[in-house]
Amino acid sequence: MTDQMAAARLHAVSDIRIDQIPKPTLDNDQVLVKVMAVGVCGSDVHYYHHGHIGSNFLDGPLVLGHELSGVIVATGMDVDPSRVGQRVAVEPQRPCGDCDKCLSGQYNLCRDMKFYATPPIDGAFAEFAVIQSKFAFEIPDSMSFEAGALIEPLSVGIWSCKKAKVGPGTRVLIAGAGPIGMVSIMAAKAFGATDITITDLSEERLGIASRIGATRTINVSSEAPDKASFDCFIDASGAERAIVGGVEALDKSGVAVLVGLGSESATLPISHIMDNEIVLTGVYRYANTWPISIDLVETGVIDLDQLVTSRFPLAETEKALLASGKPGELKPVVLPNG
Amino acid sequence: MTDQMAAARLHAVSDIRIDQIPKPTLDNDQVLVKVMAVGVCGSDVHYYHHGHIGSNFLDGPLVLGHELSGVIVATGMDVDPSRVGQRVAVEPQRPCGDCDKCLSGQYNLCRDMKFYATPPIDGAFAEFAVIQSKFAFEIPDSMSFEAGALIEPLSVGIWSCKKAKVGPGTRVLIAGAGPIGMVSIMAAKAFGATDITITDLSEERLGIASRIGATRTINVSSEAPDKASFDCFIDASGAERAIVGGVEALDKSGVAVLVGLGSESATLPISHIMDNEIVLTGVYRYANTWPISIDLVETGVIDLDQLVTSRFPLAETEKALLASGKPGELKPVVLPNG
Amino acid sequence: MTDQMAAARLHAVSDIRIDQIPKPTLDNDQVLVKVMAVGVCGSDVHYYHHGHIGSNFLDGPLVLGHELSGVIVATGMDVDPSRVGQRVAVEPQRPCGDCDKCLSGQYNLCRDMKFYATPPIDGAFAEFAVIQSKFAFEIPDSMSFEAGALIEPLSVGIWSCKKAKVGPGTRVLIAGAGPIGMVSIMAAKAFGATDITITDLSEERLGIASRIGATRTINVSSEAPDKASFDCFIDASGAERAIVGGVEALDKSGVAVLVGLGSESATLPISHIMDNEIVLTGVYRYANTWPISIDLVETGVIDLDQLVTSRFPLAETEKALLASGKPGELKPVVLPNG
Amino acid sequence: MTDQMAAARLHAVSDIRIDQIPKPTLDNDQVLVKVMAVGVCGSDVHYYHHGHIGSNFLDGPLVLGHELSGVIVATGMDVDPSRVGQRVAVEPQRPCGDCDKCLSGQYNLCRDMKFYATPPIDGAFAEFAVIQSKFAFEIPDSMSFEAGALIEPLSVGIWSCKKAKVGPGTRVLIAGAGPIGMVSIMAAKAFGATDITITDLSEERLGIASRIGATRTINVSSEAPDKASFDCFIDASGAERAIVGGVEALDKSGVAVLVGLGSESATLPISHIMDNEIVLTGVYRYANTWPISIDLVETGVIDLDQLVTSRFPLAETEKALLASGKPGELKPVVLPNG
Repeated sequence: MTDQMAAARLHAVSDIRIDQIPKPTLDNDQVLVKVMAVGVCGSDVHYYHHGHIGSNFLDGPLVLGHELSGVIVATGMDVDPSRVGQRVAVEPQRPCGDCDKCLSGQYNLCRDMKFYATPPIDGAFAEFAVIQSKFAFEIPDSMSFEAGALIEPLSVGIWSCKKAKVGPGTRVLIAGAGPIGMVSIMAAKAFGATDITITDLSEERLGIASRIGATRTINVSSEAPDKASFDCFIDASGAERAIVGGVEALDKSGVAVLVGLGSESATLPISHIMDNEIVLTGVYRYANTWPISIDLVETGVIDLDQLVTSRFPLAETEKALLASGKPGELKPVVLPNG
Repeated sequence: MTDQMAAARLHAVSDIRIDQIPKPTLDNDQVLVKVMAVGVCGSDVHYYHHGHIGSNFLDGPLVLGHELSGVIVATGMDVDPSRVGQRVAVEPQRPCGDCDKCLSGQYNLCRDMKFYATPPIDGAFAEFAVIQSKFAFEIPDSMSFEAGALIEPLSVGIWSCKKAKVGPGTRVLIAGAGPIGMVSIMAAKAFGATDITITDLSEERLGIASRIGATRTINVSSEAPDKASFDCFIDASGAERAIVGGVEALDKSGVAVLVGLGSESATLPISHIMDNEIVLTGVYRYANTWPISIDLVETGVIDLDQLVTSRFPLAETEKALLASGKPGELKPVVLPNG
Repeated sequence: MTDQMAAARLHAVSDIRIDQIPKPTLDNDQVLVKVMAVGVCGSDVHYYHHGHIGSNFLDGPLVLGHELSGVIVATGMDVDPSRVGQRVAVEPQRPCGDCDKCLSGQYNLCRDMKFYATPPIDGAFAEFAVIQSKFAFEIPDSMSFEAGALIEPLSVGIWSCKKAKVGPGTRVLIAGAGPIGMVSIMAAKAFGATDITITDLSEERLGIASRIGATRTINVSSEAPDKASFDCFIDASGAERAIVGGVEALDKSGVAVLVGLGSESATLPISHIMDNEIVLTGVYRYANTWPISIDLVETGVIDLDQLVTSRFPLAETEKALLASGKPGELKPVVLPNG
Repeated sequence: MTDQMAAARLHAVSDIRIDQIPKPTLDNDQVLVKVMAVGVCGSDVHYYHHGHIGSNFLDGPLVLGHELSGVIVATGMDVDPSRVGQRVAVEPQRPCGDCDKCLSGQYNLCRDMKFYATPPIDGAFAEFAVIQSKFAFEIPDSMSFEAGALIEPLSVGIWSCKKAKVGPGTRVLIAGAGPIGMVSIMAAKAFGATDITITDLSEERLGIASRIGATRTINVSSEAPDKASFDCFIDASGAERAIVGGVEALDKSGVAVLVGLGSESATLPISHIMDNEIVLTGVYRYANTWPISIDLVETGVIDLDQLVTSRFPLAETEKALLASGKPGELKPVVLPNG
């Protein structure tokens, strides 16, 4: 193997180039992953269009992409070399392991996190990527690399449903039938919910949501969810109007979980929250979800392949980014190694 | 005993009259309480000035007051008659006992609640009041009737600290050094907190808060609590600015509990909530708090008598309402039976 | 309607008679249910053979049976009379509503409980039975009366899975492939478990368990579950050997839930419990499970009809009791009204 | 500094020798601590008398001692060198940081733990010891080194009270007035309990327990705790009779926490556990307790110095071990650096 690899790097707003860069080097606890599939996430698209997310600004060429699967091709000194050849889904974060949040199991809130595709940490639109061994989770041969890559967004759905305390008997409302809305439906169903309502403006997306498992769809262009009718609300839209409507749709002691990125602030009905002891929280990535997500896909409870709507070679990463969010598109996937 | 009693009734905004009205009749499970002390609550004052709270409008003469203690003087058919003579603190609500919320222990969120001093249910600024026997909690002789009446606001503090998961090691921020702020300090301390910061605009109130147990005071006219520095935030102010500042002062995975009544809605920093997985909720009265509150006062952990700043006979209930909130006043108390 | 009804009553050990007795009278909050189906429970059989369970002794003729469904035919004064004609599944207990356990949502632990078929409270092997209206839960026309009756044992499975914190990713071990073992499998699957192991001595029962949803069966006559391999263990056997084996099969921080009735005491591996911070608890009936159970059956997630192995008219209640536990039998059902 | 240090090592049962051994070397994330105070724990004494605990056998000379405080005198390459000179209390365990238990915050259940004074890991009866920097917690000048060492046993009490869900209103029963019983009293009080009963056979120890904060003492030579009267039970005795009595003393939904080491198994009243949905669990060391414990001592809520009953130089470590458990002794402390 040479020491170089191809990588799609964002140099500036709307400026993706395929560069030859050095392969990443391995720390003792890391593995080198030959990247086989990478899903395009809304945050990748946001960096492409805006050059930053919140206060994280691009400060040099950056490899985007953090939804990935691949094959282990090399191992660090402290890693069992028999892992070479394993097919893996990657949890794309590196918590410090030392802070109070890491020590209490909330490593997604680590005070010194390194996360893929967040400046200056490179992501996965490249031929190779590195990750600490423990976050390269083996996937069975029966699982496609594309499904393996989408373990990442599924993990967001799993984490949201855990926060929302979804279970049998829970009436679930989800706002936004994009990829996160879809995995939230899948996760809610896997957690035992039998009553799953989703809202969106697109009939096409609502139709997909129905096929995936939503038991009711509401097109919010003409209708609103009933007030005080749900036990939990997962916002996958980021839209203030949807958030407010979702919170108002919660019954007493309901739980609202904010997932979708949107504006910095929102005007919320706090008297409704107080009078009904509603709980509002948000999710920030995920912790300890890969094993559950892999299990649900491996056992056939969840089918992630149905979310993939288009495929691109590494050279067309920009096209993949531009495809995201278009009508008919749900999840474009980049295949860096063909 | 005659069948009539004196009661201070609100006939209209700013119109309190001492009326002779029939003593309340007893259901089988109820007791008649000779009212000895009644604290003035901000909600009583709000009804007095505005004639309504939210969508609850005065629709006839109403006895206000819901913080009460007294002596049982008669018992319903199904109640042990030996209770006559007992000194009691009253939990002033009557949940239905049948709805899903009652059956799951969240009876404060009962779907068919009858609450003292909420139209059309009469409250306690009267010589007598009725309550189901189980919500008339015996208090020891060592506890004053005034302290017995203030078990009610203390219960709000207890409930807030439970929601906020206060315990040893929790860094607590409380906004608003009024009566609810004060009982929140007391409760936080009783739950083991050793780091209790309170904010207010009044130096006088901050001084009282210090004496009661706050370990740090912040006068928000010139200073703000540090960002990301607290594990929980209890808002006892109802002021949007304080709520926003409190939420921003929460560290990762912190909990915000809204207690103070204020505006219908507030513009909250939802990206801060999401990025830090902060939990925001509110309290609506309380459930199952009287035994704990009584225990904490009986064992001397909490001293409620220090909150009482003035006393009024029933005839001067209006004066008591007007005293509330004045400089130097914390908790005016009406003594309906002298 | 006459005032009399037929009822199968236990007069003494092994002495069931069909008696004409007065129809039960209605309290204000109750409904009269024409009983359509009643499942036979192991506790009914235990009373039949031993005349007592623990310290509850038969002290007069007793109607057994507490797994029932039927049709409302009359309503108490405080009940909406339009309920007449509704098909219902009955939660066969009457908690007091006043004690600390009722008020905190743990009404199954009520300090003054009246439970069907527990001396001196009559049960359901009769033409009619009474229950407070809130515990007569409407079932849809699509649900058979037999399934409606088995909502009761399913509720035990639901309650056990809640205590065991079953969810996606949980490795579940169940001991005992009798009716409670079977509903535990069904419930575990509904809560999202994909890894469900059941143990028994009967190949026939293990075969049924597989069809119902167990992913692995272990015949403990020749094999034992691996140690430290499960996240939760539900004992539906009551056998000390199974309990010990199940606790030892738990991984670190696993949960053991005892459901099956057996001996008063058992010799447990407490050093294993301590070293691994295992949690051991038990279930006592259930609380707030009927809505969930009905939902799971109504939406087709769970099929209770497959558990019914034989049917008997009221006159043959004794036969039904004797059938329980025989090879090939899982759940005999009595149909008191044909 | 020379490369050698003095250490008290257990060579065989009842064979402690003061050896000159190499100072421990530092990993990059570790600090070297000059040991100032080390408490004697029952487990040290057990190794001294038996040469093993459970399946952990002495397999070479071992330094015992795991309750320690000291001063940082050197730092590993990745540690801030300004830590040199800091007074610290040491959490004496090194979890792997990679396994599922570490990642979920239960690092005390780590699948690859290295714990002080557990073969072959050396402990602290020595002039120096090493620990990863994050587990060397700074203590204020106001805290004695002896109190700093006893942060370890206090942490057991804190962890037990967390498991037992102690808070205001909780009726606490503790069995065994040895050091763990004493720190459990202290912790229970700090968590808000006002009703703390302790049992023992020694009047002298019960007297100390009273002074430390127990509100009631029971000498079990002549009396037993009332049945069904407590919300939680902490066993600090390890005696089967005490465990059974404690479980039987629990009220409905009570929690039993086993802390004291004793026999492998115990015959427990499982029908009582089931009928009352009692929860039984155990503690295995602790996780995330040092910050809380230090805070409680620093703020004066808990006074650990009162537990120290004798002091020994390193040369007399064997004497310290033999002192433990004698009448009048609670906690002997070794001072390795004078």
